[in-house]
Amino acid sequence: MKPYVVGIDIGGTNTVFGIVDARGQVIASSSIKTLKHSDVNDYIEELYQGVMQLMQGHDAVDKVNGIGIGAPNANYYTGVIEKLVNIPWPTPLPLARMLSDKFGLPVSITNDANAAAIGEMTYGAARGMKNFIMITLGTGVGSGIVINGQLVYGSDGFAGELGHVIMKRHNGRLCGCGRTGCLEAYCSATGVARTAREFLEIRKDDSLLRNIPVDLITSKDVYDAAMSGDSLAREIYEYTGTILGEAFADFTTFSSPEAIILFGGLAKSGDLLLKPIRESMEKNMMNMFKGKVKVILSELKEADAAVLGASALGWEAKPVPAPVPAVVDAAPAPEVAE
Amino acid sequence: MKPYVVGIDIGGTNTVFGIVDARGQVIASSSIKTLKHSDVNDYIEELYQGVMQLMQGHDAVDKVNGIGIGAPNANYYTGVIEKLVNIPWPTPLPLARMLSDKFGLPVSITNDANAAAIGEMTYGAARGMKNFIMITLGTGVGSGIVINGQLVYGSDGFAGELGHVIMKRHNGRLCGCGRTGCLEAYCSATGVARTAREFLEIRKDDSLLRNIPVDLITSKDVYDAAMSGDSLAREIYEYTGTILGEAFADFTTFSSPEAIILFGGLAKSGDLLLKPIRESMEKNMMNMFKGKVKVILSELKEADAAVLGASALGWEAKPVPAPVPAVVDAAPAPEVAE
Repeated sequence: MKPYVVGIDIGGTNTVFGIVDARGQVIASSSIKTLKHSDVNDYIEELYQGVMQLMQGHDAVDKVNGIGIGAPNANYYTGVIEKLVNIPWPTPLPLARMLSDKFGLPVSITNDANAAAIGEMTYGAARGMKNFIMITLGTGVGSGIVINGQLVYGSDGFAGELGHVIMKRHNGRLCGCGRTGCLEAYCSATGVARTAREFLEIRKDDSLLRNIPVDLITSKDVYDAAMSGDSLAREIYEYTGTILGEAFADFTTFSSPEAIILFGGLAKSGDLLLKPIRESMEKNMMNMFKGKVKVILSELKEADAAVLGASALGWEAKPVPAPVPAVVDAAPAPEVAE
Repeated sequence: MKPYVVGIDIGGTNTVFGIVDARGQVIASSSIKTLKHSDVNDYIEELYQGVMQLMQGHDAVDKVNGIGIGAPNANYYTGVIEKLVNIPWPTPLPLARMLSDKFGLPVSITNDANAAAIGEMTYGAARGMKNFIMITLGTGVGSGIVINGQLVYGSDGFAGELGHVIMKRHNGRLCGCGRTGCLEAYCSATGVARTAREFLEIRKDDSLLRNIPVDLITSKDVYDAAMSGDSLAREIYEYTGTILGEAFADFTTFSSPEAIILFGGLAKSGDLLLKPIRESMEKNMMNMFKGKVKVILSELKEADAAVLGASALGWEAKPVPAPVPAVVDAAPAPEVAE
């Protein structure tokens, strides 16, 4: 096994990449603007130059075991990005193959929440765990599920969409997925901001949040208000944590994880969120699982996490198989008159 | 690999056992009364005699690869039955070890729904599937989850309690598990009978079910009425199937299974139940999973299913490890006056 892997995290704005060693140290990292290139081939060229420059600068050429990529809607089985939002490249995009051809290295690809789970298992709070669930609380709610030490990709490569279990079956909030009542509509950063707007409209009590134009309130504002002791802001956290706890109790009936690990912007709220989650989870838990499931925070440094998570895939990356050649029908035999 | 396995299904009333070959043929089977013996050692002795008699009668002595057992609350990891309801033997009961010592054969044990899933994968509708969910619709609702070709036992051996996800968070029915709103409280055979009683009480329309004393109505009565065209009975099936479909759409976000396979008494309702399940599942499904998940019926013959399911564990059964000896403190060294 060569001593390094390369991690690439493709976001809507930036693509961050770095060289990582087996202990999870980011040896060097850099980034390019994802959207600078309307042609994906130009993007790949700039990415290639950037990664090569890092490798050359750190004596890592020929010492990289593989490349791992985290990208939205990426299918681990096929190496293809199935859908892109706000990025104008054609889909389905066989990115694993394109980068593998370019670098001459094995490339694995998966979505960002799955990459985070693998990163946590390889370098973070889930080291040594065989069964855990990673929940990313950012603009949306993502998840990566590990069972028997393996990431769960499911029959089609897209398992682990726990942000879209239905938590409110009646009068639920509209979700970005087009349905209503999803966990993500309540417990993402945007969900918390929506809760704030709902609470401020329905209720009459004072709050620091009333000093902010209601349409501009963010989850950060709710955090700041709660840390200042604002009781309405604290109730927003309790509301959010209660729903997460209900969801986590249901998740436990599925895979009985050792831990549920939180990552992402909202997770930085710490006990403000952890306390109501744990209370609600235990209250809603089946007796046989009570007291067994830890709810903990990611141990990956936020600045490094995206690259680390993606890079962890590079340890198990296998050469991308050649595409199956299109079946060409043999020319029909000419009809011969009898 | 030897050519046979033995399957033992321990129920509250009967213990059924049989010899099974690699093609899933039950070569011979028999049963004893579980509750005849208040002492578990007497039970094991009778079970041993019964199984030995079958083996001797079919030239199978020394040709059995292992023994698989399906039993309620059985822990695959430890081989222990953690809890018994209506059976007076002491728990935790290390049944795998006791039977392994008695037979001199490897013994594996798990709960009945997990055994059904392994049976379906080995001999039934899930042959060749790597990702599916088995749902047993009987007195309760049980589940066995297969991911990457492996049964999901979770961190403690008790994963796969999908009968206890919460489907109604407000004013839900009391469930046998002590909580309210569980899938099982609505979609088990007893749940269907409860729905019938609720519908009959709330509504005024005619129904064949009104000819039966309301407290005696069973799911079989609802089935018979529905098959006779009774519209209230059909609505009970629609109500039941709708909730199952909602649950299955949520399960899909977890493991994206190729199929969900139904087993047990209620599954025999066929299209009466399948049709509303499929409609509701697709209606509630995230777009990315729509049209991907099959809902199908078990292909195991009901009479053989319990033995087949349990027996399938016998193919992979490993010798039960010796119990860890209790740590005995060395006698403290006598104090010596300086």
